[in-house]
This record gives sequence, C-alpha cells and structure tokens, in this order.
Amino acid sequence: MESYLHIPPLLGVFGLLVALAIYVVVSRYPAGNEAVTKIGDQIHSGAMTFMRREYSYLVPFAAVVIAIVYFSGLGLYTAIAVFAGAFSSAIAGWLGMYSATKANVRTATAASESGAETALSIAFYGGSIMGLCVASLGLIGLGGLFYFISADHPHAIEGFGMGASIVALFSRVGGGIFTKSADVGADLVGKLEAGIPEDDPRNPGVIADNVGDNVGDIAGMGSDIFESYCGSMIACIAIAGTFVAAEGRSAMMFLPLALASIGLISSMIGIIIVRVFSSLSPASALRTGTIGAPIVFIAASYFLINALLPENNIYVPVDVWLAVLTGAVGGIVIGLITEYYTGSTPVVKIAKSAQTGPATVMITGLSVGMQSVVLPIGSIAIIIYLSTSLSDIYGVGIAAVGMLSTVGITMAIDAYGPVADNAGGIAEMAGMPPETREITDELDEQGNTTAAIGKGFAIGAAALAALAIISAFVATVPTEDGETLKLLLSEPMVLVGMFIGGAIPFLVASITMTAVGDAAFEMINEIRRQFKEIPGLLEGTAEPDTEKCVDIATTAALKKMLLPGVIAVGAPPLVGFTLGAEALGGMLAGGLLSCVLMALFMANAGGAWDNAKKYIEKGNLGGKGTDTHAAAVVGDTVGDPFKDTSGPSMNILINVMAIVSLVIAPLLG
Amino acid sequence: MESYLHIPPLLGVFGLLVALAIYVVVSRYPAGNEAVTKIGDQIHSGAMTFMRREYSYLVPFAAVVIAIVYFSGLGLYTAIAVFAGAFSSAIAGWLGMYSATKANVRTATAASESGAETALSIAFYGGSIMGLCVASLGLIGLGGLFYFISADHPHAIEGFGMGASIVALFSRVGGGIFTKSADVGADLVGKLEAGIPEDDPRNPGVIADNVGDNVGDIAGMGSDIFESYCGSMIACIAIAGTFVAAEGRSAMMFLPLALASIGLISSMIGIIIVRVFSSLSPASALRTGTIGAPIVFIAASYFLINALLPENNIYVPVDVWLAVLTGAVGGIVIGLITEYYTGSTPVVKIAKSAQTGPATVMITGLSVGMQSVVLPIGSIAIIIYLSTSLSDIYGVGIAAVGMLSTVGITMAIDAYGPVADNAGGIAEMAGMPPETREITDELDEQGNTTAAIGKGFAIGAAALAALAIISAFVATVPTEDGETLKLLLSEPMVLVGMFIGGAIPFLVASITMTAVGDAAFEMINEIRRQFKEIPGLLEGTAEPDTEKCVDIATTAALKKMLLPGVIAVGAPPLVGFTLGAEALGGMLAGGLLSCVLMALFMANAGGAWDNAKKYIEKGNLGGKGTDTHAAAVVGDTVGDPFKDTSGPSMNILINVMAIVSLVIAPLLG
Repeated sequence: MESYLHIPPLLGVFGLLVALAIYVVVSRYPAGNEAVTKIGDQIHSGAMTFMRREYSYLVPFAAVVIAIVYFSGLGLYTAIAVFAGAFSSAIAGWLGMYSATKANVRTATAASESGAETALSIAFYGGSIMGLCVASLGLIGLGGLFYFISADHPHAIEGFGMGASIVALFSRVGGGIFTKSADVGADLVGKLEAGIPEDDPRNPGVIADNVGDNVGDIAGMGSDIFESYCGSMIACIAIAGTFVAAEGRSAMMFLPLALASIGLISSMIGIIIVRVFSSLSPASALRTGTIGAPIVFIAASYFLINALLPENNIYVPVDVWLAVLTGAVGGIVIGLITEYYTGSTPVVKIAKSAQTGPATVMITGLSVGMQSVVLPIGSIAIIIYLSTSLSDIYGVGIAAVGMLSTVGITMAIDAYGPVADNAGGIAEMAGMPPETREITDELDEQGNTTAAIGKGFAIGAAALAALAIISAFVATVPTEDGETLKLLLSEPMVLVGMFIGGAIPFLVASITMTAVGDAAFEMINEIRRQFKEIPGLLEGTAEPDTEKCVDIATTAALKKMLLPGVIAVGAPPLVGFTLGAEALGGMLAGGLLSCVLMALFMANAGGAWDNAKKYIEKGNLGGKGTDTHAAAVVGDTVGDPFKDTSGPSMNILINVMAIVSLVIAPLLG
Repeated sequence: MESYLHIPPLLGVFGLLVALAIYVVVSRYPAGNEAVTKIGDQIHSGAMTFMRREYSYLVPFAAVVIAIVYFSGLGLYTAIAVFAGAFSSAIAGWLGMYSATKANVRTATAASESGAETALSIAFYGGSIMGLCVASLGLIGLGGLFYFISADHPHAIEGFGMGASIVALFSRVGGGIFTKSADVGADLVGKLEAGIPEDDPRNPGVIADNVGDNVGDIAGMGSDIFESYCGSMIACIAIAGTFVAAEGRSAMMFLPLALASIGLISSMIGIIIVRVFSSLSPASALRTGTIGAPIVFIAASYFLINALLPENNIYVPVDVWLAVLTGAVGGIVIGLITEYYTGSTPVVKIAKSAQTGPATVMITGLSVGMQSVVLPIGSIAIIIYLSTSLSDIYGVGIAAVGMLSTVGITMAIDAYGPVADNAGGIAEMAGMPPETREITDELDEQGNTTAAIGKGFAIGAAALAALAIISAFVATVPTEDGETLKLLLSEPMVLVGMFIGGAIPFLVASITMTAVGDAAFEMINEIRRQFKEIPGLLEGTAEPDTEKCVDIATTAALKKMLLPGVIAVGAPPLVGFTLGAEALGGMLAGGLLSCVLMALFMANAGGAWDNAKKYIEKGNLGGKGTDTHAAAVVGDTVGDPFKDTSGPSMNILINVMAIVSLVIAPLLG
C-alpha cells in the first residue's frame, strides 16, 4: 500500500514547476510603455505591501494558535501541521498574487499591441499560476504530512486544515475589506460626485481599487478555495480513519489525495484546452476548458477508484465513484444557478426597478438575493441525500472532494477575471485607445460570468467540505459509552448551540459590513480632500496621492480583520469547553445552515446588483448619466461588500469553526 | 379536577364584555366635524372592504384545509377545532380593527378639542379592545374546546392552533403587503417627487396608507399574537399530554389555560393603571401599565401554580413558576434589546451615514440589523437553557405561556401605536392646527417605542411557542419501537430537512418583498397618473381618486398572499409524507432558526431605518429637505417591507409549519 503514498506530493512539486514555467512564459511578454509599467508597478507594490503587512499580523496570531495547540495536549505534530497549513496557504496566496500583478500589465499591453487572443492567453496564464499553486501546494503540504506522520499521528493532519483556514479567514476578510472600501470610496466620489469615469487616473482611490482586486479576488479567493480543497480531503481522511475495523480503510483514507492528484492532471489538461481554443472566442475557450477538465477527471476517477479500493471494500467502488460524480455535477449545477440569478432575467428586473429610484433597486435586489438561496440549497440537500445513500457520511466528504479536485482550472478561471479587470483598469489609466479597452472589456465580461459560476461553486464546495468536517468531528469526539456522539435536536444543549451558531454568521457579516462602511467613509473623505486641496487634480495637471488611499484601505482592513478571526477561532473552544460537545455540535449545525444561507444571499444579491448596473451602462433603460443609472449605482455599491467581503467570509467562517472543532475534538471527553 | 375547567372560557366571555364596555365608552366621544368624519369613514370603509375581501379568500382556503383534515383520518373533532381556531382569530382581527377605526377619528378630535390626556385615553382604549379580544377569544375558543373535547380527543385541540395560524398567516402577509405597498407608493411619489408632506390630503395614496396601518399593524399583528398565544398553550397541553404515567398530568395540561386566565385579569389591571396614570405623561402611563401587568401576573402565578399542581408533581411547582418567570422576564429583555437597536446609538449611526448618500445608509442599516440578531438570539438560548433545566421541554412551553399570558396589555399597547399614528394622519388630512398634530405626534412617538418593544417581544414569543410546538411534534410522532422520535443531526434525512427548512423563510421573505415592490410600483404609477391627469390636484382644487389606490393595494395583497400560504401549509405534509418524519423534524429545526434570524434582522433593520429618518426629520444633521434626509428616506422605504411585511411573516411561517406538523404527526407512522 505504501508504494504510492509519495505520488501526491511529487505530483504537487511537478505542478509547481509547471506554474513556474507558465510564469516564465508570462514574464517574457512585454510589460509595455513607461506609463503602463508605472501604473503596474504602483498596483504591484501596493498589493505586495498589503500582503506583507497582512502577514505581519498573521504571524503572531498563528504563533499564538500554534502555541496553544502545542501546550493544550494536542501535541507537537498537530502544531507542526497547523504551521504547515498556514504556511502553504500563505505561500499560495503570495505566489498567485505576485504573478497576477505581473500578468495584468502584460494583458493590457498585449490587448493594445497584439490583439484579443494573446491578451486572453496572458490573463488566463496569470490565473492558471494561481490555480496550479493552490492545487499543488495542497498536494505537497497535505500529501507530505500524510506520507510522513499520518501513520503514527492520525489526528495531527487535521491541524493542516486549521492552519490553512486561519490564513484563509484573514486573507478573505482582510482582502475583502480592503478591496471594497477602496472600490466604494473611489466610485462614490469619482463617479457620482466628481463625474469622472471609473478607473480615471485623476481619481486618488483608483490605484487602491485595482490593488483591491488583487488582494481580495485573487489572494483572498485563492486561500478560500485552498482551505475548502484541503478541508474536504482532511474530512475524508478523518472519517475513513474512524472505520477502524473496515476493509479498505487505508485505501479510503488515501483516496481523497489520489482524486486530487488526478484532478491536478485534469486541470492541466483543461488549461491546455483553453490555450488551444483561445484562437476561437474567449467565451468558448473558457467554457471548453471549464467543462473539459471535470469530464476528464470524472472519467479518470472511475478507473482510479476501481483500482484503489479493494474488492471487499465496505462501500462498493462504483458507489464511491457515483458520490464523486454527484459532487462534481452538483458543483456545476450550483454554479449555473448562480449564473442565472446574477446574469439573466433577475438582473433585468433589478435594472428596471432602478427606474423608480434607489429604494426599489434595493427591495428588488434583496428579494432576488433571498430567492436565489432556494435552488442551491435544494441542490446541496440533494447532494447530501445522494452521497450519503451511496456511502454514508464518507460519501459527503468524497462528493466535496469530487467538487474540488479540479480546483486547478476552477481557480485559474476565477483568477483570470480580476487579471482581465485590472488590465482594463490599467488600459483606462494609461490612456490606451478605445479599441484596447473593448478587448479588455470583452475579456472582463467573460471573467465576470465565470467568476459568478466560481462563486456559487465555492459556496457549495465550502458547505459540503464543512459538513464533512462536522461529520468527522461528530465521529471523533470521545464519549463515555464509547459510541458516536449523539446530537439530538430535542436536547436543549444542542438547541442552545444551534441558536448560538446561527447568530455568529450574522455577527461576522455585520462586523465586516461595518468595516467596509467605516473604511469607505474614511476613503471618501480623503478623496474629497484631495480633489479640494490639490490644485489642478481634476484638470489632469497634478497627480493624486494614491499611496495615501492604499494606506487607508490597508490599515482599515488589518485592524478590522482581527475580531472576526478571534470570533471564528475562539467560539468553538469557548462553547465546547464551557457548554460541552453537544452544544458545540449544535453550534456547528446552526452555523453551517446560517453561513450557507447568508453566503448565497449576499453573494447573489451583490452579483445581481453589479450586473444590473452594467446592463444599464451598456445603454439599456437610458444608459449612463440617467437617474436610473444613479439608482443602479447605489445597488452596486451596497452589493460590493455583500458579494466581495461579507458573503465570502461566510464560507471560511464555517470551515474555520468546523476544523477548529475537529482539532479540539479529542480534548472534549 | 373538573370543577374549574369552565373558568377560562367564562373569564373569556367576561373579557369580551369588558371590551364591549370600552367600545361603548369610546363611541360616545365625538367623532368630530364633517371633514374629520369623512376621512375617518374613508379609512374605516377601506379597511372593512379589505377585511371582507380577505376573508372571502380565506373561507375557501380554510374550507379546503378543513376538508383535508377531516378526510385524512384526523377526524371530525380536529376539523371542528381547525374551524374554531380560524373563526376565533378572524373575529378577533375584525373586532379589533373595527374598534380601532372608530377610535382613530375620536383620538384626533380629542387631541384638537380636549387635549393630550383624553386623546391618549381614547387611543389606548382603542388598542385595549383589540388586546382584550385577542386574550378573551383565545380563552373562549381554546378553553371551550379543552372543556368539551380534550378528554375524549386529546389531539383534536391542536387543530385550533392550525386554524388560528392559517388566518394569522393571511392577515399578516396580506395586511403587510397592503400596508407597505400603499406606504412606499405614497411616500415615493408624494414626498420625493411631488414634494408634498406625508399624509397630505392631495396625495391619492394617503387613504390607502392609513387603511394599511389598520389592516397590517392592527389586524395583522393581532392575529399574529393570537396565534402565538394559543400555540404556546397548545404546545404545553400536548407536551403534558404525553406524560402518560406522570403525577399531575391533568393539572399540567390545564396549567397554561389557568395562567392565561390570570394573565387576562392582570392585563385588565394594567389597562386600569394606564387609564389612571394618563393624567401624567403618556410615556410613564404606558410604561407603568406595561410593567405593572406582568408583575401582577408573575406574583399571582406563583400562588396559582402552587395551588394547582399536586405535591408529588413530576416537576417541583416552584421550578415551573421559575420557568414562567424566565419567559416573562426574557420577553421584556428581548423587547428592550429591540428598543436599543431601533431607537438609540445605532439609529444615530445610520442617520450619520446618510450624509454620504443612500448606499452608506443601506450598508449601515443592514449591518445594524445583522448585529441586532445576536443578543436576542443569545437571550432565547438562555431562556431555552434555563426553562429546560427547570422542567424539560414542558418548561419551554411554560416559558412561552409566561411571556404571552399578559397578551391583553401587550397587544393593547401595540395596537395603540397605529391608532395614534392614524389620528395624526387624520389631523393632517383634515387640516387641524399644528398644536393638535403636536399632541398626536407625541402619542405616536410613544407608540413607536412601545411598538418596537412589542415587535421584539412578538418574535421571542413566536420562537419559543414554535419550539414548544416542535417539541410536542417530536413527542407525538408514533415510532416503530414506541420510543420518542430521534432527530439526530448526523442523520442525512435530518440534515436534508434542515437545509430545506432553512431555505423556506428566504423564499417567503423574497415573495413578500417582491409583492410589496410590485404593488408599490403599480401604486407609484397610479399616483403619478393622477397627479398628471387630474387638473388642479396639486393645487388642492380637485380631489384625488383614493379608492382606486385602496383597490390596487387590496388586489395586490390578496393575490400575493396565497403563495406563501400554500408554501407554509403545504411544506410540512409534503416533506413529512415523502421524506419522512425525521426530515420534517429537521425542516422544523432549520426553519425555526432561519425564521427567527430573518425576523430579527428584518424587523430591527427596518425599525432602525425608520427612526433614523425620523431623527433627521427632527432637525438633526440638517433636517428635512436635505440630501441627507433624502438618503434616509431611501433607507426607510426599504425598511418598510422589512419591518412590516417580510419580517413579521417569519413569526407566523414557522408557527404554521410547526402546528401543521403537530396536527399531522399522528399520521406519520
């Protein structure tokens, strides 16, 4: 059995080498003229400064957590795993963002000098580096730990998920606050008050806005997906680990890593497909790659599962494969539903409601967001039903792994969007001709659609991963009678926990919304001040102080990300050690439900508002400059923290709470 | 034991007679001059027309439900109980609204001719009639059924709650859609476009707006509270009914009715206190009455419980009394937290955020609403913990009864608010002098504060009542092994149900929000049409066609209330009979959590936006007519359906789903 345990980490190293090769290819494209490189450097250095300062907050926080883990009796190996998880996640985010801020200028320059095909290639290469880094570092970190320590310290590996999820929480929350305070601030003063276009170089907040796309949508999203990806594998390992007397136990523990390995290969094939098809339209290239990779993965996983699991395995191999299929198909279905709500009839309805002012835009958008919850939740319920019918709770974990194994391509396409968006911003700021912007706009539009699918997918994956981790928690908690922990809904402590868990997401959403509101308020005042006090700024004869705006967003993001982090990491031990394991189990169930509902509600409402505004900007219902457009901008502004700060925080919140609970489970005797 | 079973219904009859006496007193006050009576008649007849048309929808719906209940094997007595519950609730709503629309004109006239003290008395009398009707009809209906049929048909009595909750759902949802479509429509065109004040008689939507206050805030709120009130008693009866071999079983079954009886007496004492103190300030009169009644009730219940429960009762009498105390105190605490979030620092914060436009008003308000969920949910968790420690799930039911027994005074003060609000509107429309409006404004302001407390209280009470009913459901479902149904959170079907249940409130909230948006849109177009097409309307020389606006709101409300009704009543049998009792139990748990979270979020965000607007209208931050005020009006407009349509629908939604489940529980073998 031991003969193939080394394959996942080695494959991970290979994936990183491919990512490096792509980076070399990207960096050989011309960065562009002086104006472009200057803007690119400002964005790059703003993003890097933010990451450095963010990690300087993260290191002491992680150190405290690691120290507590070490001294609490969970032991050295768990502490090492926490460190490894945090380190892998941080490296993945850093590498991805580093490459993305190199790709964005080159995409803009290529759009100007070589045309759409090359521009698409570069933007997509930029995203692919992130995708491959996430998938590869997961395999190296988790696969490596599995190879070295899982035999002697089976629970220690769970620490990897905890480390990854803490970094993810800070990256997502910090990045989300940064990006939206900059975006809201720059838009409100620039577009509505000063009457200058988006991404206008005269706007002091515009560099911060572009930095935000990188730290929020690339680094934040990357660590978010990294955490679900590793979390789903860890859950399967933990669940299979409890099948003490079952046939095929060790094969089932290894299976998630094996699936992720062929997922990485499938993703590389998908990336090649996009490259080959990019001479056709960007839309069909991206679509073919996105659909091609999972198809290759699903086919290959059939043979893998049959080869790996013994004949007398407690679950029939084909049932396990069907669970993989359920997850992979379910993820796509949830993504398509998200695409419908953020890009179709509901968007037109919101746009039309803008004709009667901002209040009706809000009412319609909120109701679209609420309605958009129903079908994805139904899909998750069906996935749970099918996967558990196929192979109990192991099936839920495997479905989550099935959904996330092709993370290389999913993440590549997710990260492609902000790179294309940034390229458009750079083209605008550098005063490139309208033809260039048409190309970047088209790339960006494709990116928005795929990003919407990616968001729905991320929520579905996070929900399943969290559920699998919670199941592993339930299976792990030691009980007096030696049986599995019974979480009866009729038990008062379970109910008490459920209510507490249900309220935490609202608290975190409120904190992050407030953070964006407060930071945007500071940003607005600073931008207003610059417009007033810097003579010649609006006329284009003086330069804005963009660094000051980057600094405001950075400081606000770092200050405000701590409290959600403390709540997410602190709530499970607090409830677990004071109210007991039953209350903690209830809290995780309530938290899961509430997080998934709020994540879908906020992400979809925000996406729909965004696209309603874009629909009007394309000239519908009167177009830009009308009262209808102004009303739609209000919706988009409210939607910004919904879809890019508070909504995405929900995915991580529940995963952090679940994995921390799983890690402390052995102590909850 | 039988010797005192007749007391609750007889006391109920006495309560109705007192309500009648108060009605006679109110109707002897002068209705006012011709202008006032004409406006009053328009409001009265609009409200009555709506109620008639609403009930004409309700009768066939209820008939179908009753027929299904009868033929499904639940039997004749359950069908009779459903009818009795629906009938009692409908009568309570009708009587309360009839009196309220008589009291509002008289309050306005008294404010103009006799001063604040008399005006307060009349407005409060108007509300008291509603409060006494709710409390009395509950005792007559439920107490009567208990007296006649509970011995032979113990489960049949649960049908009473089902009937009451169906009427409540329609009244709340229908009334909520009516009131907010009229309010939003009238405000958007009147205040923002035509630039005329609120309640200006030139506005065609203004009568509909005032009708809405009555059908939504009085009839809707009344049937909502009626349903929680009866639901909490039914849950206790059902839970105690399962204690087959326990000492004191029959006394514990009767206890909720006994508590409600002394609650009715305490409420009457509270009403007298308000009347006596009304020569002081309205604020202290209302506060003394609101606090006095529960104190009398808590003291009296101590003696009642000790007298009623046998010495060898399975729960120590003092523990049961402490559960009553927990509920009564918990209700007040939740009310006070609501008052904080909708009337204190958070409101000022929202108002300040209006200085940077409508988008920041929305962001701040949404985050206040989300944050406001945390402490009430914590309070509910504490109530659950304490009451179950005292006497298991029976304690939860008794805590709910403790919270709701003084419904006579709570409802009186709740209904007082809209009467005073209406009086203000009538004073404005009839062109009464500013001094009159100052008096009605002061009464209205007090009403708003007490209404905020009442709303939080209603949510807390509904949550506990629903939880008690769900517990009764779990105890009632027959199982193969004869033990209680086990709802394990690790069971896939329970999780599937939980996700379905979590999504339903979002669906219903979305439907009701959309309904308000659509109906308001129609209303806006109609009001715009009238301003454009009726010559002399804005100059005050021509009269608006107010009936057309009432008709639009009525039609929209009736059309749109059906779908939420079908979902609420249909979901439990659908899930229960297809996915099984475990899935249904999970659905109720998920639905409870999601409903309570959404109810608090929406009610408090809406209330805070409303008061932020009022704060600015008092002259703060520039006052009326500024951009800051316009931004705050947007918040208020979005908050309207939040706090008065979708939010309150949540309370009833979970109670309908819970009681329908309890009724069908015996069939889920």
